[in-house]
Amino acid sequence: MAVQVAVIGSGVEHEGRAEQVGRLLAKRGCTVVTGGRGEVMAAAARGAKAAGGTTIGIVPGDQRGEANEWIDHEIVTGIGHARNLAVVASSDAVIAVGGKWGTLSEIGFASLLGRRVVILEPGLAVEDVPRASTPEEAVELACG
Amino acid sequence: MAVQVAVIGSGVEHEGRAEQVGRLLAKRGCTVVTGGRGEVMAAAARGAKAAGGTTIGIVPGDQRGEANEWIDHEIVTGIGHARNLAVVASSDAVIAVGGKWGTLSEIGFASLLGRRVVILEPGLAVEDVPRASTPEEAVELACG
Amino acid sequence: MAVQVAVIGSGVEHEGRAEQVGRLLAKRGCTVVTGGRGEVMAAAARGAKAAGGTTIGIVPGDQRGEANEWIDHEIVTGIGHARNLAVVASSDAVIAVGGKWGTLSEIGFASLLGRRVVILEPGLAVEDVPRASTPEEAVELACG
Amino acid sequence: MAVQVAVIGSGVEHEGRAEQVGRLLAKRGCTVVTGGRGEVMAAAARGAKAAGGTTIGIVPGDQRGEANEWIDHEIVTGIGHARNLAVVASSDAVIAVGGKWGTLSEIGFASLLGRRVVILEPGLAVEDVPRASTPEEAVELACG
Repeated sequence: MAVQVAVIGSGVEHEGRAEQVGRLLAKRGCTVVTGGRGEVMAAAARGAKAAGGTTIGIVPGDQRGEANEWIDHEIVTGIGHARNLAVVASSDAVIAVGGKWGTLSEIGFASLLGRRVVILEPGLAVEDVPRASTPEEAVELACG
Repeated sequence: MAVQVAVIGSGVEHEGRAEQVGRLLAKRGCTVVTGGRGEVMAAAARGAKAAGGTTIGIVPGDQRGEANEWIDHEIVTGIGHARNLAVVASSDAVIAVGGKWGTLSEIGFASLLGRRVVILEPGLAVEDVPRASTPEEAVELACG
Repeated sequence: MAVQVAVIGSGVEHEGRAEQVGRLLAKRGCTVVTGGRGEVMAAAARGAKAAGGTTIGIVPGDQRGEANEWIDHEIVTGIGHARNLAVVASSDAVIAVGGKWGTLSEIGFASLLGRRVVILEPGLAVEDVPRASTPEEAVELACG
Repeated sequence: MAVQVAVIGSGVEHEGRAEQVGRLLAKRGCTVVTGGRGEVMAAAARGAKAAGGTTIGIVPGDQRGEANEWIDHEIVTGIGHARNLAVVASSDAVIAVGGKWGTLSEIGFASLLGRRVVILEPGLAVEDVPRASTPEEAVELACG
């Protein structure tokens, strides 16, 4: 089974970095896992597909078709924001790009479960979580 | 995105039929979704892989590595039996092979969400759910 | 801690029986647990309050104020239909009054978790689940 | 229905403050909601009961009897750490006392859902969340 890495976050101003993270993860052969919706989630999946990678989108609703168009495998959880737990639990490592409260819940869960977490600058301020200056460094820290 | 079909159920005596269902779904190009664990879940995934298909396992625990060896993409939900909702919600159709109480919860959820459900004989007695005599017929009813 | 008994189901034609079940449970000192919304859920809570009992409503949404007016303690799960698991898991016994697919998922989960389940006539057809002819008998079977 | 306030956190060194918070909430007539287990969760419930209050414990497992002895109403979710969402969603306001990664996930969810959140000093460093120096101030900020 391929290594699975989650890209979490939000904010249109972070889409460029998220797309680059997705691309780099795909080049390494990692499957990109996201929450399946827009902004950072869509950008990471778009980047991964552009590099020939595989993408999984774990969405909050209970109907098919909620995931963005760059998702290969849509996981429909039906559990709303609690799907944030599934996004990070399904991943061997997690890279946060931008984001706000939902992203904070995911960083909490990922750390609680012992997953490797990296925050890409500029990003949320969370104590005891490693930070990376560039997408390359983020991917290196997450997968290295 | 490929059509996703869940194979649900349990019981070692049903593994042969489940493997055949998995094989037939893969031949049609459907991705096989299961709860990722043993017996019927493992047999369906094994059949799908034997036919060159793709498999998703949605497991109840919160650590990686719980899925059986025929799973390509492991979704780690961390929500215990509530993952039964995600298994059927993630699928366009659901085929029940054997099974007991957990399967009953999945048939309930799948029907509630409007997914097509087929019970393969011999199987659970549930009113208002179509039944199939053979794996071929089950796959035809689910995907047709 | 008081014994907690879930009343599950739906259907306006079953409200009278549900209200009577709620009343009888409260008279025995049991806390009535429901999914917190309308029809059978509201009727059971109304009956319990009329008899001076305590009620818990476990609702699917993620905002406060979704529960019916007879609920003392609103549990806001945010997990949609997956809250059906919490309704029955929180209960020492479960009484089904009417109902359809959601109720079937709850009967499945309750039985899977080893909770005592009783179906009040007329009710869903589910193999291996005890049935009661009257609210009195249902409460006796659930709590006895 | 009474106002429901969650006390979240962990750490034996924070139990005194948590007990005081529970006591003050109960004196105001608020129901105290917690994750139902030990340390801060148990202390807050103990304080509430000492002041004649009502307590709800929302536990992660799927069997009855996991809650600490100061819990009046045990909600058994069966969804593991995802129950953190239910703890804060069920509350009109949230007070964090100590805590680590699980608490961070709860602060994230509570803020995401628009609940009032207060961090009692000394506590987690989270941007844009109000802080209180004393239990009295925390309760005032949460309930005021």
